[in-house]
Amino acid sequence: MKRSVITGTGSFLPPSVKKNNEFTEQPFYTEERLPINGKKDTLIDKFKKITGIEERRYASADLVASDLASIAGNLAIIDSKIDREELDLILVAHNFGDISCNGIQSDAMPALASRVKHQLEIKNPHCIGFDLLFGCPGWLMAVIQAEAFFKAGMARKALIIGAETLSRVFDPFDRDSMIFSDGAGAIVLEYQEAGEGGMLASSAVSHCGEELHYLTMDSSFGPESDPEIKYLKMKGRKVYEYALKYVPEAMKECLDKSGAAIGELKKIFIHQANEKMDETIVELFYRSYGLEAPKDIMPMCIHYLGNSSVATIPTLLDLVTKGFYPDHHLQTGDLVLFASVGAGMNINAVCYRYP
Amino acid sequence: MKRSVITGTGSFLPPSVKKNNEFTEQPFYTEERLPINGKKDTLIDKFKKITGIEERRYASADLVASDLASIAGNLAIIDSKIDREELDLILVAHNFGDISCNGIQSDAMPALASRVKHQLEIKNPHCIGFDLLFGCPGWLMAVIQAEAFFKAGMARKALIIGAETLSRVFDPFDRDSMIFSDGAGAIVLEYQEAGEGGMLASSAVSHCGEELHYLTMDSSFGPESDPEIKYLKMKGRKVYEYALKYVPEAMKECLDKSGAAIGELKKIFIHQANEKMDETIVELFYRSYGLEAPKDIMPMCIHYLGNSSVATIPTLLDLVTKGFYPDHHLQTGDLVLFASVGAGMNINAVCYRYP
Repeated sequence: MKRSVITGTGSFLPPSVKKNNEFTEQPFYTEERLPINGKKDTLIDKFKKITGIEERRYASADLVASDLASIAGNLAIIDSKIDREELDLILVAHNFGDISCNGIQSDAMPALASRVKHQLEIKNPHCIGFDLLFGCPGWLMAVIQAEAFFKAGMARKALIIGAETLSRVFDPFDRDSMIFSDGAGAIVLEYQEAGEGGMLASSAVSHCGEELHYLTMDSSFGPESDPEIKYLKMKGRKVYEYALKYVPEAMKECLDKSGAAIGELKKIFIHQANEKMDETIVELFYRSYGLEAPKDIMPMCIHYLGNSSVATIPTLLDLVTKGFYPDHHLQTGDLVLFASVGAGMNINAVCYRYP
Repeated sequence: MKRSVITGTGSFLPPSVKKNNEFTEQPFYTEERLPINGKKDTLIDKFKKITGIEERRYASADLVASDLASIAGNLAIIDSKIDREELDLILVAHNFGDISCNGIQSDAMPALASRVKHQLEIKNPHCIGFDLLFGCPGWLMAVIQAEAFFKAGMARKALIIGAETLSRVFDPFDRDSMIFSDGAGAIVLEYQEAGEGGMLASSAVSHCGEELHYLTMDSSFGPESDPEIKYLKMKGRKVYEYALKYVPEAMKECLDKSGAAIGELKKIFIHQANEKMDETIVELFYRSYGLEAPKDIMPMCIHYLGNSSVATIPTLLDLVTKGFYPDHHLQTGDLVLFASVGAGMNINAVCYRYP
């Protein structure tokens, strides 16, 4: 049976590392513009305990998101061994376009996918590239979108990239800035004979009532900051509660649609937003089957990469596939579940069996 | 046979009109930052002769692109008479997100589709909205994307919107600013039994070599302007030549795929970029069949609406469908061709028969 198969992965880890202790001199303020006093070490320890983040990476000043995307995309193409001129689709998920270092303007005209096609020197005029915006779950939504084009007989090979430079949109006076990072990850997805393998099912849900306001752009918490300049703002508690309420359900919907049994599940690749949150989501997901979550079900890269939005899942997948995780291996027949949650609020999941 | 059928249309024409003669006091500069002297009336006459534009519309200061999108989307839903909770997809094409009046920051987090879902008060969590960026052909690409979801059995009803506020990204010191405008247009597309009608074929091509640089963001031509602030910039001559070279070919590819004969074609809805260019494209398209372009084949709204990017085709379609054009009517059996070209450079076309 023909199904969507991942034939290559790639990622780009920006070389510049910022460790938690480098935030000790950075003043933080509350939403009410009041200074957050107390020992910075204690604050950072607590931050690390909840999020799992010890360090994160930022793109160098000479690169923008479409550059990161092109590097990751190129590696995925090389890994897949396809002729790049055979690509039908280039899908780039992001939320902020290209923003230059110290700049505040987003630039996505032409679309990042056009810039990637340019940088990858793909000439085929029937290789069509466009961008998808869907919060952090944008990359996984692009996978679902490619699947739609495949099943409809409208495409057979797609390069699917998630790229983001959150270091250029976070508010340095907001504690949450310690969460966010830059990165890019990519896969080549092909529609081919896959036996029992390939993409088995997907699910997506969206809540845009009051949830619309959980992740937005708003003024800096810094009392001296220009209120006209907007930064990425997160109602952390609301996002946390929302994710626990709805993500396990969407994962279950996806797995059940696939027809596979929970016991078959080998790995869960979840959006790297917050370690404690991700662990609780997976616990609740297993609990909905009356089970305890197995050890080593969930590879994590948040400890050293932070939350790079759309880039986290394809980056993590690339690292695991390339053997960077001694405790996590993937082989033919292995069933994996991808899941993401983010601004909108939006959630999605994909169930995939390694062919 | 089941096909994609347009069951409702809607558009929003911003109330603020700017006429050509209101530009007489505006200083224009060349790319080299040299003042463009000579009689302003002559310049404006020449501009009108080529582009066809006599006036254009700008959104009021209290509205952003997602507001325009929501108004147009709501009208399309009402027109289609569907229950909005039955929508599976909300696709919003744009290139600049929400930009406040006098602001320079694009905001598309959450995605505009999430904002539209919020404003339309759609509660169904399985109604999924995301944004598509593909230059001016973004709206038509979203139509093609919806078709992929339909054919794949992954959706049945989609709201497809194009919305843009180009008045907030053009350079007032650049003559080309007279071209650009604001607007939003929308359709409801449903997958249903359509007899001989519905969406018959589509085509898309993309050239991202040197063509990537034909439409970009760059500094103002105004000698006193902050070079760090970027504006929409167009290499008009290059775009013109590119469009004449490739658009007729893409239209022919689409029509030929549909199996319909050129003689059956009743109307061409083409991106409203430049009247002279659009006329020449249609002439060349007919010439490729050894024919002359029929009179009244091409309804135009550029004269009084300018170029509102992704919004032009759905707006024009809505105006024609609602009977605002005495010389243009659509009825069952009529074959129409949609075509667009823009930043990337990207081109697409859709062939549709009224069911």
